[in-house]
Amino acid sequence: MTNIYNTDLDQNPANYQPLTPLTFLERAASTFPNHTAIIHGSLRRTYAEFYARARKLASVLAQNGISTGDTVSVMLANTPAMLEAHYGVPMTGAVLHSMNTRLDAAVIAFQLDHSECKLLITDREFSPTIKEALKLCTVKPHVIDYDDPEYDGDGELLGDVEYELFISLGNPNFPWKMPENEWDAISLNYTSGTTGNPKGVVYHHRGASLLAQGNALTASMPKHSVYLWTLPMFHCNGWCFPWTLSAIVGTHVCLRAVRQKAMWDAIADNKVTHMCGAPIVMSTLISAADEDKRELETQVEFFTAAAPPPEAVLAAMKDEGFNVTHLYGLTECYGPAVVNDWNLDWDALDSAGQAAMKARQGVRYSALEALDVKDPETMQSVPRDGETIGEVMMQGNVVMKGYLKNPDATQEVFAGGWFHTGDLGVMHEDGYIQLKDRSKDIIISGGENISSIEVEDALYKHPAIAAAAVVAKEDEKWGETPCAFIELADGKDAPSAEDLDQWCRSHLAAFKIPKTYVFEDLPKTSTGKIQKFVLRERAKEV
Amino acid sequence: MTNIYNTDLDQNPANYQPLTPLTFLERAASTFPNHTAIIHGSLRRTYAEFYARARKLASVLAQNGISTGDTVSVMLANTPAMLEAHYGVPMTGAVLHSMNTRLDAAVIAFQLDHSECKLLITDREFSPTIKEALKLCTVKPHVIDYDDPEYDGDGELLGDVEYELFISLGNPNFPWKMPENEWDAISLNYTSGTTGNPKGVVYHHRGASLLAQGNALTASMPKHSVYLWTLPMFHCNGWCFPWTLSAIVGTHVCLRAVRQKAMWDAIADNKVTHMCGAPIVMSTLISAADEDKRELETQVEFFTAAAPPPEAVLAAMKDEGFNVTHLYGLTECYGPAVVNDWNLDWDALDSAGQAAMKARQGVRYSALEALDVKDPETMQSVPRDGETIGEVMMQGNVVMKGYLKNPDATQEVFAGGWFHTGDLGVMHEDGYIQLKDRSKDIIISGGENISSIEVEDALYKHPAIAAAAVVAKEDEKWGETPCAFIELADGKDAPSAEDLDQWCRSHLAAFKIPKTYVFEDLPKTSTGKIQKFVLRERAKEV
Repeated sequence: MTNIYNTDLDQNPANYQPLTPLTFLERAASTFPNHTAIIHGSLRRTYAEFYARARKLASVLAQNGISTGDTVSVMLANTPAMLEAHYGVPMTGAVLHSMNTRLDAAVIAFQLDHSECKLLITDREFSPTIKEALKLCTVKPHVIDYDDPEYDGDGELLGDVEYELFISLGNPNFPWKMPENEWDAISLNYTSGTTGNPKGVVYHHRGASLLAQGNALTASMPKHSVYLWTLPMFHCNGWCFPWTLSAIVGTHVCLRAVRQKAMWDAIADNKVTHMCGAPIVMSTLISAADEDKRELETQVEFFTAAAPPPEAVLAAMKDEGFNVTHLYGLTECYGPAVVNDWNLDWDALDSAGQAAMKARQGVRYSALEALDVKDPETMQSVPRDGETIGEVMMQGNVVMKGYLKNPDATQEVFAGGWFHTGDLGVMHEDGYIQLKDRSKDIIISGGENISSIEVEDALYKHPAIAAAAVVAKEDEKWGETPCAFIELADGKDAPSAEDLDQWCRSHLAAFKIPKTYVFEDLPKTSTGKIQKFVLRERAKEV
Repeated sequence: MTNIYNTDLDQNPANYQPLTPLTFLERAASTFPNHTAIIHGSLRRTYAEFYARARKLASVLAQNGISTGDTVSVMLANTPAMLEAHYGVPMTGAVLHSMNTRLDAAVIAFQLDHSECKLLITDREFSPTIKEALKLCTVKPHVIDYDDPEYDGDGELLGDVEYELFISLGNPNFPWKMPENEWDAISLNYTSGTTGNPKGVVYHHRGASLLAQGNALTASMPKHSVYLWTLPMFHCNGWCFPWTLSAIVGTHVCLRAVRQKAMWDAIADNKVTHMCGAPIVMSTLISAADEDKRELETQVEFFTAAAPPPEAVLAAMKDEGFNVTHLYGLTECYGPAVVNDWNLDWDALDSAGQAAMKARQGVRYSALEALDVKDPETMQSVPRDGETIGEVMMQGNVVMKGYLKNPDATQEVFAGGWFHTGDLGVMHEDGYIQLKDRSKDIIISGGENISSIEVEDALYKHPAIAAAAVVAKEDEKWGETPCAFIELADGKDAPSAEDLDQWCRSHLAAFKIPKTYVFEDLPKTSTGKIQKFVLRERAKEV
């Protein structure tokens, strides 16, 4: 309806610009050119250098024909090249597709084909898998090797040119592209695929900008914070922290692998203020040998997700100088969009009481506009009783555009105008949500999602196996591991665990291989569906 | 152009919601219902109460026919009602029009008419002016009195109902309206009007949300910060801090007037962490009697704008426990959009060197997408030499929609796709801008803009005056005061200063009255234009 406030008051370039996290880096580089942006081993790069290198990457990508709507894939550890890709790739209008470095060749090949990848940047460490994947995939992307000086292991160079030489041909003053529209895609992250093939989750510039700022607000990260990379950047674009750090002109401390002494040294030497990671990162930290631990000058804020932090871990972390905050999210919402936002009243609780409070997933980030637990049939909110289970649902600007080339899955997950997380939970009286079950097919091991169906598919192919059901089994180190229940084919003997491991290895990434095999008849419903809830109980006993 | 990333990946309520600061309050109230949101004298209100009262206000406004695109005007000091208006009014879809409480009746009447005000909430303190204004204005709005218990002065009640009774009829669970579009107007703030009538600057929900978050990021304001209201909330919506505080679940400490003891007590008693104000607020603080000053436990962050903080003030503020940051902005960019973002390298400078650095206006907020100094004729950037003067220009999401019912002025100020600030400045080598002159007609007194033309117009009406030119004169207390140069009409004697004061008082708000009158011939160019730059120099001597 027309009124005085929407007449002759239109958008124009002076008062409307697309939201994007790319401008954060430009600002950091022009305002604090000499501030340390990246630390990686003995390497120190300033914001001026970081920005110049990102523009060189963008420039040379553009020279190679990369442009709006193209896919650039990366298979990289937490390295400077990975940070540069988070800016340089979208600066051309292209979309950054980061792959889980633990994936197997078949899944990588699927992703490269499905994303119509035009160019791949791959770390030498992952050459064996990538070499295999490149044989399998239909589309052959241009391959750039990244030979990180901090990597001293094996691995051949697969491509035409090494990354440093590649970007040396670029222009550090490249006039990079703002997105034409803030709804344009910035990145692509595949889910583990609960029902068949992985789904490609598409992020847009608007959401990346808002979650990047939301992280800083939620985590109260001041200007010049120092952030340690113990969360993989391939995981939901490192929860958008590659962009957050530029917004607050902070320092990235890179780390190729989560190792005890390396972590403690990185934290103490660089005065790390913030870090994120799966529960396994906390266990790794606190189980370090005393001689590898370091005295910390100030408290480190630690953000964890995937599973509620147990009381003992919280207590140990506190003793070592870390304050742990529990986050929750999914690939579809850019990583964390829910935070266990701490009420000062709860300081008065004993450690068990505090741990119980911290176990809850929490409330929405302010960047997420709505969070609810609903009955997916009626779309009614469940009562705030902490007991009635419903599906966790979200609405907001930090929810993905949808699944790439998969309109059916996109429509389904957005049914009724809400994003259906597939996670089951309750709503407490105070508005904090708590998960009661991950959607039934997912196993979370070391912070990574494993689709039980994918593992079952691999097992089903074995000639001795008639039926298989895989569920999560609690594990002190990994959080959960896959536990396989197997019915043998008529007349077949049970294969050995070694045989099955080898079989799985040829079909699955190593981290997805079951740690436990149980041979017995599967419990089924009257209509023949396997009763996984029974097996989840059984898994506790085997 | 169609590509795989913009096919079947459309916006829907699950992944796209209008940006608005209103959701910040909902989140704060549901997550931290018992946290203190507002302190005002002995009053303490929690976030649950703040939100409930804002919804009651919205509800009762809606009952009174207020809806999308309507104007609700307020004449309020820094009180809880003013904070409630920042949420309750836009929750109905209406637009909040905050008036400078120091304006005179004629300007207020103009604003009420021009904004097509439907409802006015007015503090009893300002009844004399409002009563006069209501007589002058054509449209007669519904009037609600606010009788603040913290106000103990005179003033009659003008309207039908007092604010508390009015909102008591509202519904605390009112299902308030999200804006239909984030481009919808949220508020209206009139400029002082450099060339005739004031212009109505229209803010939108998108910009208010982004600047509110930008404040927290720029100021590194952590969760639960405590903010003292020494900046008038009628001034650019208090630079959007009424919305910032909800985003970080902080505490507002209200203050009706900037008085020395009251400020010091408020800071110390409430452990204030952040505050903003014009330079006069700093002078008032540091010039307080020793017995009125208080020991501060932690450093207070103080944000100032309007004029560069002088070295002596910076030093005195530091001694008293304040860290001063210099901001710059205009009504058209929601208050501050430029910050003198401090480089740690500059800590090594001596206090004169640091003051010189702090005198510069600085760099863009990350919420402002572009800031430049340009030749307004060619629209080319000036060289980064700290010497070449150009016009300060901006592009970004925290620039207004435009001027209400003034398409010509809107088009002019957005010419070439940049917002022309009218301020003249230089660009330093390091990308920091520095103002060299406010646009020539503006005098900044006590943080408020005074249009010299408006003052001149009043003087021109005096029968003894043939010509008048008003320029800024530096003033220790007020920053600047108006200094009037007057040519007498033939055969007339110079009126006394008392006569002229009285004359001006009948035409102008008190703060706009010249502090100095000089009777002499005015210097003119060959084409007859008055040479104000000559008078600005003369003003230093008189």
